[in-house]
Amino acid sequence: MRRRLTSLSRSSLTALFAKERRNYGISYCTEHQEPPCPQIKTEIPGPKSKELFKEMMGIQQCGSVQLFSNLERCAGNYLADADGNLLLDTYTQISSLPLGYNHSALLNAFCCDSDVRALVNRPALGVFPSDDWPQKLRDVLLSIAPPGLQHVMTMMCGACSNENAFKAAFILYCIKKRGGKTTFTDEEIKSALQNIPPGAPNLSILSFKGLKNNGAFHGRTFGALATTRSKAIHKLDFPSFEWPVARFPEYKYPLEEFKCENEKEDKECLANVEEQFERWEKKKPIAGVIIEPIQAEGGDNEGSPEFFQGLQKICQTRGVGLILDEVQTGCGPTGKMWCHEHFNLPSPPDLVTFSKKMLTGGFYFKPEYMPPQPLRIFNTWMGDPSKLILLEKVIQVIKNDNLLQLVEETGKVLKCGLYKLECEFPAMMNSVRGRGTFLAFNVVKPNLRDNIIKTMKQNGVLGGACGVSSIRLRPALIFQPKHAEIFLDILRKTLRQLK
Amino acid sequence: MRRRLTSLSRSSLTALFAKERRNYGISYCTEHQEPPCPQIKTEIPGPKSKELFKEMMGIQQCGSVQLFSNLERCAGNYLADADGNLLLDTYTQISSLPLGYNHSALLNAFCCDSDVRALVNRPALGVFPSDDWPQKLRDVLLSIAPPGLQHVMTMMCGACSNENAFKAAFILYCIKKRGGKTTFTDEEIKSALQNIPPGAPNLSILSFKGLKNNGAFHGRTFGALATTRSKAIHKLDFPSFEWPVARFPEYKYPLEEFKCENEKEDKECLANVEEQFERWEKKKPIAGVIIEPIQAEGGDNEGSPEFFQGLQKICQTRGVGLILDEVQTGCGPTGKMWCHEHFNLPSPPDLVTFSKKMLTGGFYFKPEYMPPQPLRIFNTWMGDPSKLILLEKVIQVIKNDNLLQLVEETGKVLKCGLYKLECEFPAMMNSVRGRGTFLAFNVVKPNLRDNIIKTMKQNGVLGGACGVSSIRLRPALIFQPKHAEIFLDILRKTLRQLK
Repeated sequence: MRRRLTSLSRSSLTALFAKERRNYGISYCTEHQEPPCPQIKTEIPGPKSKELFKEMMGIQQCGSVQLFSNLERCAGNYLADADGNLLLDTYTQISSLPLGYNHSALLNAFCCDSDVRALVNRPALGVFPSDDWPQKLRDVLLSIAPPGLQHVMTMMCGACSNENAFKAAFILYCIKKRGGKTTFTDEEIKSALQNIPPGAPNLSILSFKGLKNNGAFHGRTFGALATTRSKAIHKLDFPSFEWPVARFPEYKYPLEEFKCENEKEDKECLANVEEQFERWEKKKPIAGVIIEPIQAEGGDNEGSPEFFQGLQKICQTRGVGLILDEVQTGCGPTGKMWCHEHFNLPSPPDLVTFSKKMLTGGFYFKPEYMPPQPLRIFNTWMGDPSKLILLEKVIQVIKNDNLLQLVEETGKVLKCGLYKLECEFPAMMNSVRGRGTFLAFNVVKPNLRDNIIKTMKQNGVLGGACGVSSIRLRPALIFQPKHAEIFLDILRKTLRQLK
Repeated sequence: MRRRLTSLSRSSLTALFAKERRNYGISYCTEHQEPPCPQIKTEIPGPKSKELFKEMMGIQQCGSVQLFSNLERCAGNYLADADGNLLLDTYTQISSLPLGYNHSALLNAFCCDSDVRALVNRPALGVFPSDDWPQKLRDVLLSIAPPGLQHVMTMMCGACSNENAFKAAFILYCIKKRGGKTTFTDEEIKSALQNIPPGAPNLSILSFKGLKNNGAFHGRTFGALATTRSKAIHKLDFPSFEWPVARFPEYKYPLEEFKCENEKEDKECLANVEEQFERWEKKKPIAGVIIEPIQAEGGDNEGSPEFFQGLQKICQTRGVGLILDEVQTGCGPTGKMWCHEHFNLPSPPDLVTFSKKMLTGGFYFKPEYMPPQPLRIFNTWMGDPSKLILLEKVIQVIKNDNLLQLVEETGKVLKCGLYKLECEFPAMMNSVRGRGTFLAFNVVKPNLRDNIIKTMKQNGVLGGACGVSSIRLRPALIFQPKHAEIFLDILRKTLRQLK
């Protein structure tokens, strides 16, 4: 059955969902509910969104809210807002919706009683997990583990996942420093409670910045925030750890035209990493290095496979943990399940963190990063089993619908189209880059970038900004070539309007 | 219809749940599914739990796991384990289950399509919330807000809630320091990205320790962990902020016998707080104070209403934020929705954080703590709407079933029974304390404490440890006097066995 709902009436969709949920197990493609193209009825935000915004401002600071959605009418790649507008969504809730909106596999995910019980009886997973939990970890998280990694901890969000990966790196670093000893001195125990060395040692985590200070984003809790180097507004007025920062490569585009320059950039950045190790050795030795395969929030800055291979070699030589933050790149958007699979690393990364499209937070790790004692990487909930139930469905859909292949195909259409636009509008945009549908381009000025995003929205496409002056594409994994064409048409129209 | 299932067979319960879910709206008390008393068939952990433990140890460090549960057979106040044992649960997943296991109101929570959509289309709440979100915040979170507070932010866990409350305190402190100015200098912007002052200022948060170093617990992310002062194993090998710590009152019991001594203790502790303000003024000024109404993890250490009134006065005089961490005390276990309602504070606390029984993390705050700019207290998800759907049901049940009154009644039976046991076994236990069913007592030696918990478990009661040598009660809000009697009988039996 293929049918298109041009008018997504409230009652017809409700009836449809109700029927679907009864017929659990019957495959039903969300695409059928999508409109053929964006439908814009009001300015955005429209009057209803504006009213809701005022209401919410009475409760909390929500100045970052762009619009309010109507979840009942959202479908596939289309976000419906409170004012009846239907927007093609290339930003997908800050890159966190793997299958778009109202995917039938997810709407049906909790039809089974045992899954409902996992949802409402949330356990303290580190103390009283349910008897199906080890199996669930294997069937869901380990089934898609980065090659070579067979251990995983669950957490709740990206920041918490990164912070616990830091902890794992600190623990192993300290064990090595003690010559393999896994016990503590009385002085260490006492001083740890006072937040001072030796129990709370002066160690650091190295992260990366761009040339224009637009760099890493690893989250906003205080440990993660100390490694975040993207925007001052995330950090102002908050005390932080004085921790080292190295230069992330900044390439010239198109890559193939500037091969020599970019190779030189890689070498300089790797030399800069070595420099930081030397500089901080006495002050606050580096116990771990955290890096995004593509610096997303910081501007979709790419590093080459050679850069990442070189970085891994440095970390191995120095005996410190390399943490790949795949919170935004993980779960398929680059055309592979994990972006670092593009890098041909000689051995697996030490730790790989995830969240967003994975729906649960957590991190994979090499066995030597398992702490010798319990309760060191621990919290009350340690994740949320209900998120693994959803993730299991997501993985099934990715496999059954060959979504990684779709990402590659759609990515090609998108990138090719963006290259064309770059040629058509060289005074407005450049530096098209990325992998799969995880793509971006630069706009020549920040104001123009903001204006393009605003005008695109009014033309029916929801887009995302990143870095100083970039636009990033973060569509769901179900984004098809036909959606790419709509996006490209609207971007072209927008660029013409603003030319 | 009242029926008791003495044999909780897999199929009959499944059928029951299925029927319940179809008959959404029909009230059905979970109690009916409870066994009349604990049923112990194997040693605990039993052979199945032990096997699962081995399996899970191959995936992650899970040495803190006590047993594996069978969620299908859990009912009300009873946890069923993988080996067929049914334990009366007085610890409830580290105090995080408000209504016990498999409560019908929660099993039925997602029968409505709109709630399913909120569950599977998780938004970035700070950018594209759904159109029912402001109403949801009002109907759910603000309907039970601490008296005088009308603002709330949602987060995902207790640690993250505390860290964001720190941020709110830092922001207001810095605005005051700038004489009300809400803009930043270029130097501040530049230095914030480098993690150094003035952009990342040398400010601190004051927390509290006990006399024996067993003190505050505010979570495990790096900012929260710097204020946590309970156990060294939570902190060892992790760099921390050198932040001030003041003495939490340590009372003599019974309270009414040692009125003078305890009043003196309050005064000394408040003087110690003042001392910290002076001592840290030059080094790292205190911008906020965080405290639990009852230090839970640290040993169920109580502070008197007078102590908290005095602390609030100091914070007001000094112009810094008072953060009440109600992560464990919030949502009813002390007989009031918020524990600080027992303190008769002249004005509301500046910030009140929550998580655990509230199912969602977050914090209430006075309007002056709303940051002037967006994106300062922010992250991708900003909480999880599906948790508010569950919390809404929890609040309905608390109101409809008068659970706060039940907590008081059951608490009286429990406390009275514990006093009796304290008289019967003075060489083993003392210092019975607490409010509502949020109760604890000391055991004379840590080893004996651990042994009591282990033996109680074998006798059918799941209990929790806290502090150096205490046992804490954290039953669900549906714990009744009859459950209290079972607990007390088994504790008495256990004490006799170990005498």
